[in-house]
Amino acid sequence: MNFQDIILAKRYGRKLTNEQIRFFVDSVTDMSIPDYQISALLMAIVLNGMDDEETTSLALFMAESGKTVDLSAIPGKKVDKHSTGGVGDKCTPILLALVSSFDIPVAKLSGRGLGFTGGTVDKFESICGFHTEIPIDDFPGQIEKVGMVLSGQTPDLAPADKVLYALRDVTGTVDSIPLIASSIMSKKLAGGADAIVLNVTYGNGAFMKNKTDAIALAEKMIRIGHLSKRKVTCVLSPMNQPLGKAVGNILEMQEVVNTLKGFGTDDLLEICIRLAVEMILLSDKAAEHQPDSLRSLCEKKIRSGSAWKKFSQFIVAQGGQVDASGNPIFCDVPVEVEAMRSGRKGYVESISAEQVGRASVVLGAGRREQSDKIDYGAGIVFSKKVGDAVEFGDKICALFMGQSHPKDSSRVAEAIEILEAGIVISSEPVLSTDDEIVVMK
Amino acid sequence: MNFQDIILAKRYGRKLTNEQIRFFVDSVTDMSIPDYQISALLMAIVLNGMDDEETTSLALFMAESGKTVDLSAIPGKKVDKHSTGGVGDKCTPILLALVSSFDIPVAKLSGRGLGFTGGTVDKFESICGFHTEIPIDDFPGQIEKVGMVLSGQTPDLAPADKVLYALRDVTGTVDSIPLIASSIMSKKLAGGADAIVLNVTYGNGAFMKNKTDAIALAEKMIRIGHLSKRKVTCVLSPMNQPLGKAVGNILEMQEVVNTLKGFGTDDLLEICIRLAVEMILLSDKAAEHQPDSLRSLCEKKIRSGSAWKKFSQFIVAQGGQVDASGNPIFCDVPVEVEAMRSGRKGYVESISAEQVGRASVVLGAGRREQSDKIDYGAGIVFSKKVGDAVEFGDKICALFMGQSHPKDSSRVAEAIEILEAGIVISSEPVLSTDDEIVVMK
Repeated sequence: MNFQDIILAKRYGRKLTNEQIRFFVDSVTDMSIPDYQISALLMAIVLNGMDDEETTSLALFMAESGKTVDLSAIPGKKVDKHSTGGVGDKCTPILLALVSSFDIPVAKLSGRGLGFTGGTVDKFESICGFHTEIPIDDFPGQIEKVGMVLSGQTPDLAPADKVLYALRDVTGTVDSIPLIASSIMSKKLAGGADAIVLNVTYGNGAFMKNKTDAIALAEKMIRIGHLSKRKVTCVLSPMNQPLGKAVGNILEMQEVVNTLKGFGTDDLLEICIRLAVEMILLSDKAAEHQPDSLRSLCEKKIRSGSAWKKFSQFIVAQGGQVDASGNPIFCDVPVEVEAMRSGRKGYVESISAEQVGRASVVLGAGRREQSDKIDYGAGIVFSKKVGDAVEFGDKICALFMGQSHPKDSSRVAEAIEILEAGIVISSEPVLSTDDEIVVMK
Repeated sequence: MNFQDIILAKRYGRKLTNEQIRFFVDSVTDMSIPDYQISALLMAIVLNGMDDEETTSLALFMAESGKTVDLSAIPGKKVDKHSTGGVGDKCTPILLALVSSFDIPVAKLSGRGLGFTGGTVDKFESICGFHTEIPIDDFPGQIEKVGMVLSGQTPDLAPADKVLYALRDVTGTVDSIPLIASSIMSKKLAGGADAIVLNVTYGNGAFMKNKTDAIALAEKMIRIGHLSKRKVTCVLSPMNQPLGKAVGNILEMQEVVNTLKGFGTDDLLEICIRLAVEMILLSDKAAEHQPDSLRSLCEKKIRSGSAWKKFSQFIVAQGGQVDASGNPIFCDVPVEVEAMRSGRKGYVESISAEQVGRASVVLGAGRREQSDKIDYGAGIVFSKKVGDAVEFGDKICALFMGQSHPKDSSRVAEAIEILEAGIVISSEPVLSTDDEIVVMK
């Protein structure tokens, strides 16, 4: 098979055959075609699209391009969860503890953060002693013991996706529904899940900038699920301001603890419960509950402390240190280095999640390059959310850096500048925007 | 400037600025951006297009990416000629001699052949002793002496175009009107011409497969000419069967000689005269003649032998050997090795120029790779053209190989097979197709 014929087929808007997509993925995996040919094909896919069958083939062949995870040693249906990314998105830890408190086995493979959205693995690694490299073989034992397990993704999971992602990142071909959908689904399919709940975020802090695109992406992933015989539920949620109050590794884990203890902000708690309900509905335990009752059951699991107890046990099971009350002990202490205050009386009109994400990376909370070291104590905590009334001089947010990191004034100044460009205070009350959570299946 | 922003701009269908196009060409020339980014941009251009201003900027910056030729030492307006390529296209030698016989200075830079269309430089090099590497500084002297000069293109003419062309060739991005137009025009602009006559061919033996695309390409090049202050005339002509009778270096030069002596085939003579008339109209001599009289004046120049005389003098001036009658002496002797005959009575319905070109390359008349050696005596001569009636057993064409090359039966068999797939004999008379020559300016 000639790779150029595949490029030409897509360039002229034709549907690629199963064999052509397999050849494409194989060639990417064994690096037998030059990257300039791959990038030409990627751009042709971006502009001429791929239908559901093509996208499913791409996802399946990418899933098969490396190791696939076998979770069959864990009894029952395994439900995985994934978010298309967001700023301050600490749903995974909350949600997993919540679902686990229903005696549903939870086995999660998570990634590290790159760019302005954080990674779940980094957040857990801010706890002293916490191991994120749990061999798959040890999953059943830990599930037996505490009901949940989390591990960093093995580097050989869907390697073709990694090559394509790195190339897309530098060739203007990230923003494509078939490419995003097949990338996400390839990792989920390789990860061995029986069913998948996907949190598709949209807004300035997400890949998908608007709800229409988010719906299109969700539809595509549901259809890939259908064609690859996995149940997929998509929960669409806005990501125009950071989720909850905190951005940054330790700061977010502290918010996770607070939320599990019943002190979460509304937006964060809402999306976690909605995602938990969908995961329970896809699990073996679905039959045991009235669907309508699941929401209040989730709230009860938090009120009663059972979700929090699960979480604390889970931390200990993965080697994390906890104090006498079961609270995680972190590897650093966030210190407030600066506060951003309102220059006027009015209402918070918008807080750009993207700008907040960028500012937090400048403070050291994330990586600009794969090799960057993280300041686990760095980040931003908001006192105000969109719609809140503010007086002149009110604190909008506080900037933090880890105690063990010397305060770097130039980085603080740069972060403040980025935040100022991303936060708008208006004199008029803010009308509620269309940011309802939507479930699609 | 960030190259990825340029890719993204074109990916989202925006117009590139002058500065972005300059940065693109500069980066290609000094190889400061990776080829996978270039190919992504090329595919975005192929699919989202470029308007006239963008295409002109691209042509101008590519022209400036290397040496530009200064022909100002030659008095008067310099008119260049270019063909978008064809099989059996030996117009350049005929045309240049014809135009030169009107006392118009002719300075031509030509390329070598690659793929199934031959190159003018290769054809002249089949004459013993003929030099094709004439320094630009020697142009005025030779023009003074014999009125015409021809040289191979210097390798540093529009180097950015060379890099892009090589990449387009392997990334499915050849077939794009703005990219083809800017590539052709960049070389013409760098070549120092004041006005340009372009023979835009269309059909199975040309880049442009149909007349609509040829018209679009011609319009684009005329507008590039307008924006870069050069008069451009396009002469559109069909290339569905080989031009004239011969394909192959010596065989075509023999046909050139015959045509200049007044024994040319109608199709070849017609396109040469049409191109010559347009070149004369763009030259300083235009005012000396009634436009309507130019066609018959051209015919007279051939009948009277003045065009032929010019040609013979020109051969000698460039070091080529001629016999006592002024005929060129070739470096080899074509020997007929096989003939293809009609298997039925009927009419020649079609002769695929592309297949004939491929068959001639198999025989040794062209290069498959840049480094291939040419058999100057190899090629094909047609006894029949499209529309001709044939009896069973009539010779349709003869296959030749150079006397100094051993006959290679397997190549002959392969060439015959390719020809048989490209020549159709039907029982019905062939209706004339819409293959009129069209002039656009």
